[in-house]
Amino acid sequence: MNILITNDDGWGSKGILTLVRLMLPFGHVFVIAPDSPRSGAGACITVNKPMYLTRVDNPGEGLEQAEVYVTNGTPADCLKLAINALFGGDEKQIGLVVSGINHGSNASINVIYSGTMGACLVAAEHGIPAIGFSYCDHAPDIDLSEAEKYIPEITRHLVEEEVPYGICYNVNFPVGAIEGIQWTRQCRAHWEKELAPQTDAEGRTFYTLVGNFVNLEPDAEDTDEYALAHHRISITPTSVDLTAYQQL
Amino acid sequence: MNILITNDDGWGSKGILTLVRLMLPFGHVFVIAPDSPRSGAGACITVNKPMYLTRVDNPGEGLEQAEVYVTNGTPADCLKLAINALFGGDEKQIGLVVSGINHGSNASINVIYSGTMGACLVAAEHGIPAIGFSYCDHAPDIDLSEAEKYIPEITRHLVEEEVPYGICYNVNFPVGAIEGIQWTRQCRAHWEKELAPQTDAEGRTFYTLVGNFVNLEPDAEDTDEYALAHHRISITPTSVDLTAYQQL
Repeated sequence: MNILITNDDGWGSKGILTLVRLMLPFGHVFVIAPDSPRSGAGACITVNKPMYLTRVDNPGEGLEQAEVYVTNGTPADCLKLAINALFGGDEKQIGLVVSGINHGSNASINVIYSGTMGACLVAAEHGIPAIGFSYCDHAPDIDLSEAEKYIPEITRHLVEEEVPYGICYNVNFPVGAIEGIQWTRQCRAHWEKELAPQTDAEGRTFYTLVGNFVNLEPDAEDTDEYALAHHRISITPTSVDLTAYQQL
Repeated sequence: MNILITNDDGWGSKGILTLVRLMLPFGHVFVIAPDSPRSGAGACITVNKPMYLTRVDNPGEGLEQAEVYVTNGTPADCLKLAINALFGGDEKQIGLVVSGINHGSNASINVIYSGTMGACLVAAEHGIPAIGFSYCDHAPDIDLSEAEKYIPEITRHLVEEEVPYGICYNVNFPVGAIEGIQWTRQCRAHWEKELAPQTDAEGRTFYTLVGNFVNLEPDAEDTDEYALAHHRISITPTSVDLTAYQQL
């Protein structure tokens, strides 16, 4: 099986090294990842600009057994480059897409902004089984040792199930000891106080994105946020079909 | 009512001028739009980079009665800038978000890549009623005269309904004469043959995104693609909750 690994933190991040090591027993591993961090990219694609795809000849320790490519494109572009440039347009040659391990939560509303999950949505568009793994800590040197124990088993389980067309999985790990695994739905939440105003050298105001996460249903027990708050791994089946069926 | 207009084609596009004119009878109109085209931005946000928000003092013909702002951010950023920089973090001061009129279809799978709809998803995150309008033609000088006749009525109808939290509307117009309006679901589809390889001045291969749209359920009569193919306006209620409930 050909396994495609990507992320939105850039190809040298700790999360990708971990995933390569964990996925090698599953098949032939390809890495196509952005040449720099693309957090917040969502399913953004590169329109009307040239994209380059470069094979990394000596990718370094931990990546020797993988075919590694980098691009100036987004995580969603990585999927399009993989399908069309590496596999001649035949998406069936990719048995599995694994994205991450993201440094930071992609639970709840974060899924719509997530480059990690954006790549998985493109995979789902093409009927390729895809799992996005995220760890709820932004630090570059996160300790993934607890998460690592569960990733092979979760991957095996999800791949052995028939993954329906248009669906991928959003898997988030709590920080610290893990006390269980829970199937969840996306929690209602929003961000507030999102702009940090500063002044540049010319006296102009500029903003950088910050913010407080507000859980709008903290008591609901079936959400991704609830699972994470209770030290459980959250697995949310996630759809590329955004239709609000209850509203139709 | 304060009405916020944005798009992903840039603040000077024909679609935004049309929306401003059509929305002025509904209330006080604010425009916050990207300073350049951001097609394909999805819900991409700007992380770790400065964003500027500039009031346009003399925005020109057709925009005199609106407050017009431009930013180097994405369509999704436009919403975050509006809520936090213009309305002090009080999202309830924005009665309606109208995004578009996009030059090009945002039906079917295109919704996940759409900056027009990315802005609407952020509005839905904040419980603000939002409608994305798209016209199925990419030309910069599209003839919007047919679509214009329906936009005020559609807007009035959707705003007068109680818009549930987390839901926005994806409205797509067929090219040419309009023969009806249809509530629809998102059609299953994917893009194929998406890369056009070229060679740059240094002999390196680069790619630009192109592609063929493939409708995976051309006979289904309840989809957005079916409505558009039958000269009908398609209205798809669209959810910020990506949970695949049928899979849970």
